[in-house]
Amino acid sequence: MEIQFLGTSSGTPTKTRNMSATAIRMPGAQHWALVDCAEGTQYRLLRTGLSPMRLRAIFITHLHGDHCYGLPGLLASAGMLDRSEPMSIAGPPPLRRMIEAIMDASQLTLPYPIDWVALEDLPGRRVLPDMKVAATALSHRVPSYAFSFTEAGVERKLDIGKLKAGGVASGPAWGAIQQGQDVVLPDGRAVVAEHFLLAPRKARKVIIGGDNDRPDLLAREALDADLLVHEATYTDAILHKIGPGPQHSSAAMVARFAQAAQVKNLILTHFSPRYQDIHGALTLADIEREARAHYSGTLALARDLDRYELRKDGSVHALL
Amino acid sequence: MEIQFLGTSSGTPTKTRNMSATAIRMPGAQHWALVDCAEGTQYRLLRTGLSPMRLRAIFITHLHGDHCYGLPGLLASAGMLDRSEPMSIAGPPPLRRMIEAIMDASQLTLPYPIDWVALEDLPGRRVLPDMKVAATALSHRVPSYAFSFTEAGVERKLDIGKLKAGGVASGPAWGAIQQGQDVVLPDGRAVVAEHFLLAPRKARKVIIGGDNDRPDLLAREALDADLLVHEATYTDAILHKIGPGPQHSSAAMVARFAQAAQVKNLILTHFSPRYQDIHGALTLADIEREARAHYSGTLALARDLDRYELRKDGSVHALL
Repeated sequence: MEIQFLGTSSGTPTKTRNMSATAIRMPGAQHWALVDCAEGTQYRLLRTGLSPMRLRAIFITHLHGDHCYGLPGLLASAGMLDRSEPMSIAGPPPLRRMIEAIMDASQLTLPYPIDWVALEDLPGRRVLPDMKVAATALSHRVPSYAFSFTEAGVERKLDIGKLKAGGVASGPAWGAIQQGQDVVLPDGRAVVAEHFLLAPRKARKVIIGGDNDRPDLLAREALDADLLVHEATYTDAILHKIGPGPQHSSAAMVARFAQAAQVKNLILTHFSPRYQDIHGALTLADIEREARAHYSGTLALARDLDRYELRKDGSVHALL
Repeated sequence: MEIQFLGTSSGTPTKTRNMSATAIRMPGAQHWALVDCAEGTQYRLLRTGLSPMRLRAIFITHLHGDHCYGLPGLLASAGMLDRSEPMSIAGPPPLRRMIEAIMDASQLTLPYPIDWVALEDLPGRRVLPDMKVAATALSHRVPSYAFSFTEAGVERKLDIGKLKAGGVASGPAWGAIQQGQDVVLPDGRAVVAEHFLLAPRKARKVIIGGDNDRPDLLAREALDADLLVHEATYTDAILHKIGPGPQHSSAAMVARFAQAAQVKNLILTHFSPRYQDIHGALTLADIEREARAHYSGTLALARDLDRYELRKDGSVHALL
């Protein structure tokens, strides 16, 4: 699975960081999905290989502007490209009302249908062909959610030794068995596919969270997750200075949770603009240092346009 | 007067051009005004000397997304800077409904008041301290307007020769007379200030138009305008290919109008993304060539972040 960060700043943009938006797709897939769509997301797309024409679904974690104000413009631009494929959109309920009010006032008509999906319907709907999606409620000033993406249809491998020992000759039967189809051999024997397939590997799973001051709410989702992408708006020191009102997480809060939940890979994002990239009284290095002090897994701090791959073995690597 | 282009593409952005937004201010003024506010305008501001804190008023020409979808984000960011000064906003009536729907759905509260100004009230309202503003209806698929900015309070110059000939000695009296105040001299003579002031120079005037397929609607406004900023979405050839449906102007249409109206300076903007900056089957040079064929004044094609100065003598110059 691949993810690409299209915006990693919290609240307001900086010269190097747009606001929240993250792309996700299966490697090699033409289509892709988007989590959050801050203002400027369509500008970021111009610098990636991702086209609004191939965007299958948009998931909005919550309705603060720095997570959704780019949605009407992206929808409009997809329309100007003469897109005809439906676009699925899932988010907290006022989202639809807001988008429809904007479309009405700006007389925006789209040449493709929008398929509005209720968050609670996500597990039962096949919004994406190759990933299962579910929403988990978080804790923030407005209703906020995390989206879990689990790869669907993990490919099975033949148990070659067992096939040979069982006298099943290689040929079309092997292909059918790999697809999970039971077959009848030329000698009349019936073969149950499941008996000749190796145990499936674990399906990869990524959680991309919205704003949240209680990472522990993701404990159940994290049980089988390989990668957690979570906000770390500031360090503990700044959080204590600001107080709990904004309901964001510190790097330490997220790192401690990821450590306790044994999530092997953690990518932090959604940084307060007070943290400079390199030079400054406060820098991203402060966030990183605090997170590393509490987390021993693979850690990264996202930058705009960074791409990461979650491999089949559950390891995460930066893509160049 | 100074203007700076924050976006010059039509409909969708390109790698080098954001969508419509133009800043205007008097030289040296702390505050400034904005005409249109496409998505990404606040990102462009990060690359200028213009702050959302000093933005006094926003004028929206029409409600198509490529002219106003950046407004909620800019308002939100000004709020996060703890702005307290009121912000005046003028635009076609559904604008207020749209912005309030967005603020409601995204639970955006601003720490400063918005002063919604009806377009027809602009001449009577002092929205800007140093420029008079008026709206002129244009012709487009949705109600669209041009905004005229005329400098207020043109400074007067003393008629030194007449003062000396009249025996008015230099001193505090000269300062008072220049401010337009009648004075009584030490010898008891009463001096009417107006008699000792040179005729005021012409107040500078800039017209910044919205989308429009009838430049002639600006004929009356253009009578005393020094600079016209107008869309030239395509060349005649492309306009004829597309047909009149989108209701945009070609370079030739605008150039012919500016020539007939004797406007001395013309800056074209809002170019279709099909025109490349330099290399391509269609380039901005096509727009420029067509405009020059019909217009003999000072012509420029705007690029993002370009700054221009309209001097007191009515000439326009690029600022570096």
